[in-house]
Amino acid sequence: MTAVPAFAAIDWGTTRLRAWLIDSAGVVLAERRGDDGLISARETGFATVLDGHLAAMGAPAGLPVVMCGMVGARQGWLEAPYADVPVPLAAVLEGAAKVPHAGRDIRIVPGVAQRLAEAPDVMRGEETQLAGAGLEGRGRHVVCMPGTHSKWVVVEDGAVTGFGTWPTGELFSVLAAHSILRHSLGEHTAAVSADAPLFRRWCETALGEGGDVMARLFSIRAAGLLQGLGADDAAACLSGLLIGAEIASASRRYRPGGGAVTLVASGPLGVLYGAALGLAGHAIRPVDADAAVRVGLFEAARRNGMVP
Amino acid sequence: MTAVPAFAAIDWGTTRLRAWLIDSAGVVLAERRGDDGLISARETGFATVLDGHLAAMGAPAGLPVVMCGMVGARQGWLEAPYADVPVPLAAVLEGAAKVPHAGRDIRIVPGVAQRLAEAPDVMRGEETQLAGAGLEGRGRHVVCMPGTHSKWVVVEDGAVTGFGTWPTGELFSVLAAHSILRHSLGEHTAAVSADAPLFRRWCETALGEGGDVMARLFSIRAAGLLQGLGADDAAACLSGLLIGAEIASASRRYRPGGGAVTLVASGPLGVLYGAALGLAGHAIRPVDADAAVRVGLFEAARRNGMVP
Repeated sequence: MTAVPAFAAIDWGTTRLRAWLIDSAGVVLAERRGDDGLISARETGFATVLDGHLAAMGAPAGLPVVMCGMVGARQGWLEAPYADVPVPLAAVLEGAAKVPHAGRDIRIVPGVAQRLAEAPDVMRGEETQLAGAGLEGRGRHVVCMPGTHSKWVVVEDGAVTGFGTWPTGELFSVLAAHSILRHSLGEHTAAVSADAPLFRRWCETALGEGGDVMARLFSIRAAGLLQGLGADDAAACLSGLLIGAEIASASRRYRPGGGAVTLVASGPLGVLYGAALGLAGHAIRPVDADAAVRVGLFEAARRNGMVP
Repeated sequence: MTAVPAFAAIDWGTTRLRAWLIDSAGVVLAERRGDDGLISARETGFATVLDGHLAAMGAPAGLPVVMCGMVGARQGWLEAPYADVPVPLAAVLEGAAKVPHAGRDIRIVPGVAQRLAEAPDVMRGEETQLAGAGLEGRGRHVVCMPGTHSKWVVVEDGAVTGFGTWPTGELFSVLAAHSILRHSLGEHTAAVSADAPLFRRWCETALGEGGDVMARLFSIRAAGLLQGLGADDAAACLSGLLIGAEIASASRRYRPGGGAVTLVASGPLGVLYGAALGLAGHAIRPVDADAAVRVGLFEAARRNGMVP
């Protein structure tokens, strides 16, 4: 390593961790990925896990660290209290909590809470992706961030004004493993393709039904019994149904209207959501989720005086 | 036992079995309940399980037997092929399949299939309850049969013309045990009460959202984090959300309109659905599910020549 890192950026979630060394211009000098998310780090010790990854990347002693994600939850390293909506993204980053540590300056970006009686919600990590998503400072943006717990966020003039969670990825996994649909999907091996006709058809059906998934779930099982639907096809149906329902439901709440939906995603999930948003008639502004979190952490480092 | 049984009636499902001895006037002379549903009976042998229950009730040798439920599925004792909608309930009962057995006349009432490309569905057992639900022979009836897999059925002039499945009970169990909501509901012990304000409030919210549950599921977890929602209250929220969503979704599809919804249910679940249907503005005609299946099996025995 010839360039000099200015800080380490860590995205530390429940089941995995990603770490980067970044220089003062925002250039990535080193990268690490680990399976030592919160669950294992609570046993090993957060400082030990962090020091191990920093050493493996050759980080100099005393290098400052900026983190985001579940590491700031109550059951994480140190609780970084939520910022409440409406809140400017810049203010969220500037509110990073300081972890007591002898050797280096360590900060955790807080999550964001929506304390509405009818729609309470929380995020941790997505606020940093939003800060790095390159949203224009002015105007209203509807942002879709798919995943285990998909978030839809409204950002107005640089501030998060409202958001919601659709547990689409988790529903897929839990239904495939533990419901009667395990008989239909149990043997599925192929990843769902955005081009699969059944993915598209079930997605379109769901888009027309305003987020109602309950009426169709059992049809996947019945189609197996009556029409011989195979496991990979059943997975395409369920994926289309759930993603279509999420988009219908979130679009009704946040009304992207004629404006583009900013899609913050990576890999195959980004392709599926891109196709589904297209079927819903939305224009898309794609943002790579991995890049967004790095840019957001760089911005957090800058706003906390760790880089010039 | 002084009276003489005319036949044995068996409701044989996936996880349990209920058996009755019934005389030629329809009077119940003996009753048994067992946990030896399909799963255990496949190991023990269906004939062995049946003979054991009949002997325990003191059934005479050669007593005819009428059965309904998953015992007639492909993985049951003998596949009783589905009757396809539209089909008169009387024709379903008369189509009972004959189980080869040396000692007695054993019939299984077939299930009903809806072979629609867009809404394939199947039932096994509910057709017998419908036949015993005392529906008027003329007119259109919308029937709600809550459970693990709730069925909503339209019966017109004595024929099943359409139906659907809402896996409400299964969603509750699977989400409570295997999703992030296990952190919210994990410790819940009290049964959900139809009078619980949170059950009613979440049910009303769901009724207004047309069957969309995905947008609210994570709110239960967030309410635990932000507002200290306890486990029993979280269970009331989830139950109200799912039941309200089922009713909204099914009502949109089957439009009970001004007519009453026939509610075929027993016990606490009947009370919860009665309350929820009331919140939805439906008049209810309640039918006891246990009585309905017995009456349906009696009617099946009569139509298959087992009772005069």
